[in-house]
Amino acid sequence: LNGPNAGRGDGAQTKSGAAPIHFWFDFISPFGYFASLRIDALAASHGRSVVWHPLLIGVTVLKVMGLKPVLETPLKGDYAKAEIARYCRRHQLRLKRPVDAAPMNPLPAARVLAWLQVHAPQQALAFARAALHAHWQHNISVDNAAALAACADEAGLPAALVMQALADPQAAVLLRTEVDSAIKLGVFGSPFFRVDGEAFFGVDKLELLDDWLRCGGW
Amino acid sequence: LNGPNAGRGDGAQTKSGAAPIHFWFDFISPFGYFASLRIDALAASHGRSVVWHPLLIGVTVLKVMGLKPVLETPLKGDYAKAEIARYCRRHQLRLKRPVDAAPMNPLPAARVLAWLQVHAPQQALAFARAALHAHWQHNISVDNAAALAACADEAGLPAALVMQALADPQAAVLLRTEVDSAIKLGVFGSPFFRVDGEAFFGVDKLELLDDWLRCGGW
Repeated sequence: LNGPNAGRGDGAQTKSGAAPIHFWFDFISPFGYFASLRIDALAASHGRSVVWHPLLIGVTVLKVMGLKPVLETPLKGDYAKAEIARYCRRHQLRLKRPVDAAPMNPLPAARVLAWLQVHAPQQALAFARAALHAHWQHNISVDNAAALAACADEAGLPAALVMQALADPQAAVLLRTEVDSAIKLGVFGSPFFRVDGEAFFGVDKLELLDDWLRCGGW
Repeated sequence: LNGPNAGRGDGAQTKSGAAPIHFWFDFISPFGYFASLRIDALAASHGRSVVWHPLLIGVTVLKVMGLKPVLETPLKGDYAKAEIARYCRRHQLRLKRPVDAAPMNPLPAARVLAWLQVHAPQQALAFARAALHAHWQHNISVDNAAALAACADEAGLPAALVMQALADPQAAVLLRTEVDSAIKLGVFGSPFFRVDGEAFFGVDKLELLDDWLRCGGW
């Protein structure tokens, strides 16, 4: 969809040999969704590919860091809501999903993505995009087999693949490995980016990441 | 120091009638210090003045929000340290104060600033800058009468003014009023900015604030 490397999601390096940008997101994070709409084009403009990684901020933020969910944090919750609205106005986005709706369980979608990245890597990214789109643009809770199968269909994948992922205990193991690896790398939020050993947290950091790649760091 | 309105700090509007930018910072926040070096020039470029407000993140972040200090938060602490170093490299800054040093008690400096803003408003900003500079560029703990008097001297204020502030119980009341007012406005971190009713948190938001003022919002 965006740029020459879109739809790969397999971590393969570009012809120039430049390492990919790693991009972590949680399906229930609006800022993660915002970043998902821009990261591939940004990467492509620097000849980089993107490796998408499912993350569970319920594990990183709540369990490992011992923090509350942002929207439930006094003062910061209201600020975050205003910031989401401001971002949407600026980027001509309308979220159909209310940001203060009870968060969906992101586990099934994240497990399916982790599974697809191993078993159908060429199709994983299209699935992730479809699930994010369904959730944020159509207010669909993509936390059940029917909704996830519809996402697969939308993305041009056999729905049977999603059913296979949901039925395979390996999906949970793969996702746990993803999240554990993220934590070991110091990744904690959504969106989070790493490239060439450098870490960037938040959709606000996309401009800085862009500058970083342009300059080759500083 | 920066721009035509520097040194006012009294919230007076510019000739054009544009409302000032309100800027909150904690003396112990490196990101607040970073913002203090840029906010006046940014404001001046839009014909705005800046009202500086002392904030205590020990009250907002720890007590009201129930969060840990960022540097003590797992994962985020290490990220913040790397981000501070990256910001310094980019902006040719060297912090003499180690970011992982035990934080100084910001209360005396914040009280003096709150007191000066009422009793010597033309000199308050110079004092704030001198205290920030002493702390971050000379690793001085500006938490005692001698150090604060030296800041006053550096800023061209009579040291006696600082002694008067430290001895006046009203200083604590003024600071408490500042912090309570900030919380009522939804201000929680350092740096924090408000202009024309819009809130911006973090030094990373200066570019967005700049765009906001240029466009007149969106």
